Amino acid sequence: MAKGITKRSEDYSKWYLDVIAAADLAEHSAVRGCMVIKPNGYALWENIQRQLDNMFKETGHENAYFPLFIPESFIKKEAQHIKGFSPELAVVTYGGGKQLEEPLVIRPTSETIIWSTYAKWIQSYRDLPILINQWANVVRWEMRTRLFLRTAEFLWQEGHTAHATEQEAIEETLLILDVYRRFAEEYLAAPVFTGVKTAAERFAGAIDTYCIEAMMQDKKALQGGTSHYLGENFARAFDVTFQDENGENKYVFATSWGVSTRLIGALIMMHSDDNGLVIPPRLAPTKVVFIPIWRDDSQSDMLKAKITALTEGWKGRISFKVDDRDQYRPGYKFNEWEKKGVPIRLELGPKDIENNQVVMVRRDTGEKMFVSQEGLLERVENLLATIQQDMFNRALVFRDANTYDEDNFEAFRNRIEDPGGFFWVHWCGSPACETRFQDSSKATIRLIPMGESKKEDGSCIVCGQPSHTRVLVAKSY
Amino acid sequence: MAKGITKRSEDYSKWYLDVIAAADLAEHSAVRGCMVIKPNGYALWENIQRQLDNMFKETGHENAYFPLFIPESFIKKEAQHIKGFSPELAVVTYGGGKQLEEPLVIRPTSETIIWSTYAKWIQSYRDLPILINQWANVVRWEMRTRLFLRTAEFLWQEGHTAHATEQEAIEETLLILDVYRRFAEEYLAAPVFTGVKTAAERFAGAIDTYCIEAMMQDKKALQGGTSHYLGENFARAFDVTFQDENGENKYVFATSWGVSTRLIGALIMMHSDDNGLVIPPRLAPTKVVFIPIWRDDSQSDMLKAKITALTEGWKGRISFKVDDRDQYRPGYKFNEWEKKGVPIRLELGPKDIENNQVVMVRRDTGEKMFVSQEGLLERVENLLATIQQDMFNRALVFRDANTYDEDNFEAFRNRIEDPGGFFWVHWCGSPACETRFQDSSKATIRLIPMGESKKEDGSCIVCGQPSHTRVLVAKSY
Repeated sequence: MAKGITKRSEDYSKWYLDVIAAADLAEHSAVRGCMVIKPNGYALWENIQRQLDNMFKETGHENAYFPLFIPESFIKKEAQHIKGFSPELAVVTYGGGKQLEEPLVIRPTSETIIWSTYAKWIQSYRDLPILINQWANVVRWEMRTRLFLRTAEFLWQEGHTAHATEQEAIEETLLILDVYRRFAEEYLAAPVFTGVKTAAERFAGAIDTYCIEAMMQDKKALQGGTSHYLGENFARAFDVTFQDENGENKYVFATSWGVSTRLIGALIMMHSDDNGLVIPPRLAPTKVVFIPIWRDDSQSDMLKAKITALTEGWKGRISFKVDDRDQYRPGYKFNEWEKKGVPIRLELGPKDIENNQVVMVRRDTGEKMFVSQEGLLERVENLLATIQQDMFNRALVFRDANTYDEDNFEAFRNRIEDPGGFFWVHWCGSPACETRFQDSSKATIRLIPMGESKKEDGSCIVCGQPSHTRVLVAKSY
Repeated sequence: MAKGITKRSEDYSKWYLDVIAAADLAEHSAVRGCMVIKPNGYALWENIQRQLDNMFKETGHENAYFPLFIPESFIKKEAQHIKGFSPELAVVTYGGGKQLEEPLVIRPTSETIIWSTYAKWIQSYRDLPILINQWANVVRWEMRTRLFLRTAEFLWQEGHTAHATEQEAIEETLLILDVYRRFAEEYLAAPVFTGVKTAAERFAGAIDTYCIEAMMQDKKALQGGTSHYLGENFARAFDVTFQDENGENKYVFATSWGVSTRLIGALIMMHSDDNGLVIPPRLAPTKVVFIPIWRDDSQSDMLKAKITALTEGWKGRISFKVDDRDQYRPGYKFNEWEKKGVPIRLELGPKDIENNQVVMVRRDTGEKMFVSQEGLLERVENLLATIQQDMFNRALVFRDANTYDEDNFEAFRNRIEDPGGFFWVHWCGSPACETRFQDSSKATIRLIPMGESKKEDGSCIVCGQPSHTRVLVAKSY
C-alpha cells in the first residue's frame, strides 16, 4: 500500500475512499449521513457547476430559487411521488420554539413546491414555456452512505420546465439528456450510454426517465444524470392549466432533470489510479504545478527566478501553482501533487537550465518528457488537450472491451460475476423477467437504448419470448 | 399610481414591494416566511455572488461545504450563541420515518458545525490559517418577514477562518470588512459607513462585530454585511487547540463574516424610483436593451437588420437584448424595461437611420441623447461607467445631506422623526443610555466609527457623562 492508498486490485471500495482522503476532497461529518466537502472537492464541484450552468443558459434556461421546505400536504399530492420518496424524508416539526401546525419536509427534490408555484404563474399559452433551473441542496435520508455517491444531504441542480405540448416537453427532456451526455464526454472524459429506464427504475412521478450510464473501473455502472418526462402528472396534482391559442383549457406538460455531487464520485472512480486522483484537465482546479529542484540551497533563488520568468503571462490564461516550499523535498512534492491529480507537473533543475529545457510529466500516464523552454505555455496547453482526449479514449476502450452481447441466461449469470461488465441482452419487457435479473444476479436493467444500434429481433434471455431490442444490464452504484 | 407602482412619497413600504413585483424579482411562497427568488432576482444574486467570490479568492479564501444539519448538542455548546439563536431555530425531529435520537437544527449560521470539524483539522501551527467560505442557505424562524430583507430561509455566504494569533484574526476581520465596503461602493453604488457594533448589537458569540451601514431613500439605515472577531469563544466551546512553534498548546482564534440576499433589498431601496427598479450597471444582468421603432410593418425588417449590424461583435463583450417583438408597441416596451431597471435603452427608428444616429436613454436620470452610430459600443460602455459613478455620487450626496451632528437629546428625538436621517451623537458607552435611545426614538446605535473623523471630546447626549467619540444613530431595517 504505497502512499496510504490501497490498490484497486486489492479492495476497490477501500481504494475509492483512500483516494478521496489522499486528495483531501471530503470526509464524513458528525451528522449521520452528511459529508463535509473540503476545498479540493468543492473546487471540482465549482468547475462542474460553471460548465453545466453555461450549457443550461446556452440552451435558454434561467436560474431561480425555491424554498427548502415543502408542506407535508404538498408532497403527498402526487401519488407515485410520495410513494417513492416517503421512506427518505427528513421532517421539521418545530420552528421558533413552537410545534408546527403542519410539518415541513426538507426537499428531497422540488417538483411539488415548484409546481404549486407554477400554478400561480401559468394562465395562458403566452406564459409558456417556463425553463428554470435551481442549484440547491436536497436531503434524502439514507441508511448506508458513501462519500459523494450516496449521502443524506447532497448538492445538485434540478431543472423544472413547463410546456404547452407533449412534444415540446419530450424534446426538452431529450435536449437535456444530450447536454448531460456532452458534459460527461467532453468534460468528465466519461463515455456514456444513453437510454430510457424501465418502469421499475423510473423517477417517482415520471412517465419516462432518461439517463446516462458510465462504466467505472470495477466494471460497474454509475448513473450520472437523469432527465424525466413527467407528462401532466404534476400539473394534474397541482391543477396547473393554461388557455391555449384557441381558448381551450389544458394541463401543462412537465420535465425535470438533475445531476449532483455524485458526478465527483464518477470522476474519481473512472480515472484515478493507485497513486491517487486523476482529474480530466478541463475540470482540474489546478492544471499545472511547477517544481524547482535544487541540490543545495544556493541554487534555489536562481531556479525560482527562472520559473517566474518562464511563467510570465500565464496568469489569467491557465491555473497553475509554483511549489517552491523550502521545507519539503522534491519527492514529497511529486507525491503530493500526484495524489491530488494535477494533470501536468513541470520540473526545473540546474541541468535543465543549462539545456534550455523543462521536464514535463503527465499525471495520467506518468510519461516524462524533456521539452524546450521556448513556447512552454503552448506545449502545456496542447498536452492538456491531449490528456483530456486520451483519458476519454482509454475509458472508451476499457468500456468497449468489457461490454458484451449475451444470449444465454446461465452464461450471463456466470459472466456478470466474472469477469463482470456491461451486457446487452434481449428482454421481453415483462416486469417478471426484470425481477429475475435482479434476484439472480444483483444486476439491473440500466437502460433501453434509443437509437437503432441495438434494435434487432431475438428472444428474451430469461423467458424466451420475442424481443426487438437488446437492453443494457449491469451491476451498479 | 403609474404603472402599478405606489409612489415612494406616498407609502415607502408599499413602493418597495411594488418595485419587486414590477421587476418580477421575488414573491412569497406557500411556505410561511420563505420566498421564491424568481429568475430576474436570482440573476442579481448570481452577479453579486460572482463578484464577491472573486474578491474572496483574491484575498486567499477557498470555498467548501458543510452540512445543513447541526446536532442540537453542538449548537448549545457556546453559551451566548445558543442564547441568541434559540428563538429562531427550525428543528428536524423525524428522519426516514423514525423519530431521531437527537434532534437536528437547520443551520441558522454554521460556526458550531464548522468548529466541530476544525477540531479534527487543526493540530499544529502548520495547519493554520484556515480561510474558508461557504455559499449556502440558512434558516432563522421569523415572525414578520419582508421580501429579501427578512425571510425565514435566505441565501448567503459565510466565511469561517481560524488563526494562530489574535492579531492575525483581527486583521482578517478588518480585511473582510474592507472587502464588503469596496463591494458596496464599487458594485452596489452604495456609500457605507464602517464601524464596530455596541455590545448589545453584537453577533451572538462574538467579541466584536464590525459592519457596513448604508442609508436608504427613506433615510433609514440598512446593515449590509457583518464581520465578526470571535476570539477563542468557539475554539473553547469545541476544544480546538494547536501546538505553536515552541510546542505550547493554545486555543485557536476565529472570525466569521457574511452577506446575504438582503443586499438585493438594499440595492432596490437605495436606487429605484417611482418608475421601478434601477440597477447599478456593474450588477445589471442585462445592461442594454435595443428597441426598433417602426410606424408601419414594412419598416420592421429593415430596422431589425440595421440593429443586427450595429450590434455586431457585442456578444461576449456586453450583455444586451434586442426587443423586436412584433406584438407590443414601443411605449409598452419602454415601460417594461424601465420597470426592470435595465441601465440603458437604445432606440432606432427610420429617422435615426437617415441621420446616422441612435437614441440613447439613461434609466437612472431619464436623460435622452442622440448619438452617432459610429463607435456605439464604446459610447455605451462609457455611459455605463458614468451611470455607475453618478448613482454612487447621488447616493452619497443624499446621505451626506441627511446626516447630522446633534448634541441635544430633545432635538435629536424630534429630528429623528422629522426630517429623519443619520445622527452622529456623543454617547458615554453605557448600556443604560443605549437603551434610552432605543426606547425613546426607535433608533439604535448603528456603529462606533473606527477612524479619526468622529473622535472628539463631548458629553453623552443622554446622561451628560464624558464621551470621546460620536456614534452613528438611526432607525434601521
